[in-house]
Amino acid sequence: MTQIDQAKTNRITQEVRYIAKLEKIPSKLLSKRIASNEAVIFSNNIRRPKKTTAVGKGLKTKVNVNIGSSTDKANVKLELKKLREAVNLGADTIMDLSVGPDAQRVRNLILKNSPIPVGTVPIYEAALLARKKRGSFLKMDLETMLKCIENQAKEGVDFFTIHSGITREGLKILKKSKRQIKIASRGGAILSAWMDANKKENPLYEHFDEILKIAYKYDIVLSLGDALRPGAISDATDAAQINELRHLADLVKKARRKNVQVIVEGPGHVPLHQIESNIVLQKKLCKNAPFYVLGPLVCDVAAGYDHITAAIGGALAAMYGADFLCYVTPAEHLRLPTISDMREGLIASRIAAHSADIAKGIKQADKWDRQVSSARNKRDWKKLISLSIDPQRASEFRHSIKARELKTCSMCGDYCSMKLTEASLPS
Amino acid sequence: MTQIDQAKTNRITQEVRYIAKLEKIPSKLLSKRIASNEAVIFSNNIRRPKKTTAVGKGLKTKVNVNIGSSTDKANVKLELKKLREAVNLGADTIMDLSVGPDAQRVRNLILKNSPIPVGTVPIYEAALLARKKRGSFLKMDLETMLKCIENQAKEGVDFFTIHSGITREGLKILKKSKRQIKIASRGGAILSAWMDANKKENPLYEHFDEILKIAYKYDIVLSLGDALRPGAISDATDAAQINELRHLADLVKKARRKNVQVIVEGPGHVPLHQIESNIVLQKKLCKNAPFYVLGPLVCDVAAGYDHITAAIGGALAAMYGADFLCYVTPAEHLRLPTISDMREGLIASRIAAHSADIAKGIKQADKWDRQVSSARNKRDWKKLISLSIDPQRASEFRHSIKARELKTCSMCGDYCSMKLTEASLPS
Repeated sequence: MTQIDQAKTNRITQEVRYIAKLEKIPSKLLSKRIASNEAVIFSNNIRRPKKTTAVGKGLKTKVNVNIGSSTDKANVKLELKKLREAVNLGADTIMDLSVGPDAQRVRNLILKNSPIPVGTVPIYEAALLARKKRGSFLKMDLETMLKCIENQAKEGVDFFTIHSGITREGLKILKKSKRQIKIASRGGAILSAWMDANKKENPLYEHFDEILKIAYKYDIVLSLGDALRPGAISDATDAAQINELRHLADLVKKARRKNVQVIVEGPGHVPLHQIESNIVLQKKLCKNAPFYVLGPLVCDVAAGYDHITAAIGGALAAMYGADFLCYVTPAEHLRLPTISDMREGLIASRIAAHSADIAKGIKQADKWDRQVSSARNKRDWKKLISLSIDPQRASEFRHSIKARELKTCSMCGDYCSMKLTEASLPS
Repeated sequence: MTQIDQAKTNRITQEVRYIAKLEKIPSKLLSKRIASNEAVIFSNNIRRPKKTTAVGKGLKTKVNVNIGSSTDKANVKLELKKLREAVNLGADTIMDLSVGPDAQRVRNLILKNSPIPVGTVPIYEAALLARKKRGSFLKMDLETMLKCIENQAKEGVDFFTIHSGITREGLKILKKSKRQIKIASRGGAILSAWMDANKKENPLYEHFDEILKIAYKYDIVLSLGDALRPGAISDATDAAQINELRHLADLVKKARRKNVQVIVEGPGHVPLHQIESNIVLQKKLCKNAPFYVLGPLVCDVAAGYDHITAAIGGALAAMYGADFLCYVTPAEHLRLPTISDMREGLIASRIAAHSADIAKGIKQADKWDRQVSSARNKRDWKKLISLSIDPQRASEFRHSIKARELKTCSMCGDYCSMKLTEASLPS
């Protein structure tokens, strides 16, 4: 029985109990939200990750970290190091997006070593296999695609990004459109090139029921990929994007009918003033399915700093109701992230998620801030550093200054406002 | 005649013409907004900075960079290097917040070398002088305060932060409050400690008219400091803050009656869901006076990353109508910023400002993004890098990868979505 099956029959699973405790909410409430499809739990029933997590209504906003090799850069050890670092730095889930020659090995090792839920994009493996065996990913077939999905399910993957929403109709809209960047999604690009070359409909759309069967069997969460997400702010909220979102809404219904847990992926590049509408629209059309946003990046000009453009967009999106943020690193658009890029991206995304949780009214979200501000007011540096979102970074900054400055900080020195007023304005 | 005098008599000043051209708006429109006090121009009539700028309605959101020595860290050369770097990286204005023993020298050199408008907080100098001559800043007197203001005006400072809004009434509210951090403003702390020790009202409040006379004479913009801005998100939008804002609104009226240009400073630490109200309230109470926000930081837990918490808050604040962002660096709360900290803080703030300008509908704000996305779509890396907000950073990332990867980028390698779809989905 899947998480949904059990929730619908009022059985509290051990995953529900574990997560409810962490989130400080009643198990029954979480179970109710699993049953009503407003929240999902990432826990492949073969692997059952130790530190499972859930996303959706009333839950803390979660952060996903993408790792994995590219065709140009394949280093298994590096990817495993990224996994460890990501877990240490507070990632809630990991997606392995490997497309290098070592992809299977990387995935297997990540699954073996990850205490947190692992997601993948199985179409990548299908593309890699077709290229290896037949010379081109354009020679993928349905059988291989389904086989890859089933194999990865058996290996223990907890959630799949599946680009079932891109259709020939969508491609027609796209062809006519004046988009600056027609497709920014890697999976979407693979499928659209395949559909164009083979003059066929998207097999993941036509055979969605078969994917549902696999997902149900292993209790995998399907994350409906937005192949047509905008990759430039001028492309945001256009006909191609909204047409695909309507398809995704239909697929959400289908998944729910089969008691398969499902979430929806969202943009992308979106200007600040369109973020609220994007969230409202997704929540409305997809009947409150959890929303997993990739950014959104609020401008296109900041290559080298896209963890910041994404943190701005992610904070706003989550405040308006997005449930799950995919981190973006400063390396976005430029190179495969290094460990240091990953750190910057993950912390930026966690800041966005936490700030939104305060605004969302998530229970006790602001307790952390109260503790930090109390330590700050007392200039209890040790406590302040240990409570910081990245104690190592805070400590590095703090200890880069001279010892005599350590009573306050070198920014204000003797004119520290808290020091100046502690006598006349005690807290 | 001041900028306001001339605007009110329909004379287009050379500063108005210069700025209107840069902003791509009609000179008459800008002049009208100066006359209606919805915009201000930073240009001390003695110094007249070469690259003057304006903040307010219909104008691009501007970014200020704080530099200056602290009591613990005084290095004139370093501060001048920061000035040069800030100008190169696109700062619109500079504030010299020096409180070190070399404060006067730093200020004089900054004024001599800065092509952009320079702001200061003259109460710092008054405090430093009293400490030097009488052993404690608590021994400041009104005469010294006004003298410092006038001297700095003569030196050519373009805008002053003046904490005239903090009063004995405000301190009473503060004492009774449960604020976590009673005062986070350095100028506010100096004044409140002085008021408490001397049992007197705030001289900058009582003698505001004399300050107005100086500001009028040199055509200096008064930036009304928010001494009681929240320094913790749990303190945001409280009685102490709003009481001071009401005083600031009265002072705005007074300044306008004397044809003195005035802007209002705002928080501070504010949770995401209270930012809109803070902007609406300021704009309403202060009759659309330009709003200069210090952040706002959307959570308290991210020491070492507060350029990001401030970029999130600043983007939102500016989208809702804030006109001017004070940058925050990753060193905030921890140390006096280094050159590298300054770079991170300035670019983060410029990202926030630019993203908000797109949302605000500032003319041609998104033209830049269109150019970048067009270059990205063509994988025209040279153009993409040169158009980036920080070409040096983008280039470093780009050129850290191996030559064979340079056709796309090492993130997706052969699976670059733009490369995969350029044949089937030409732009």
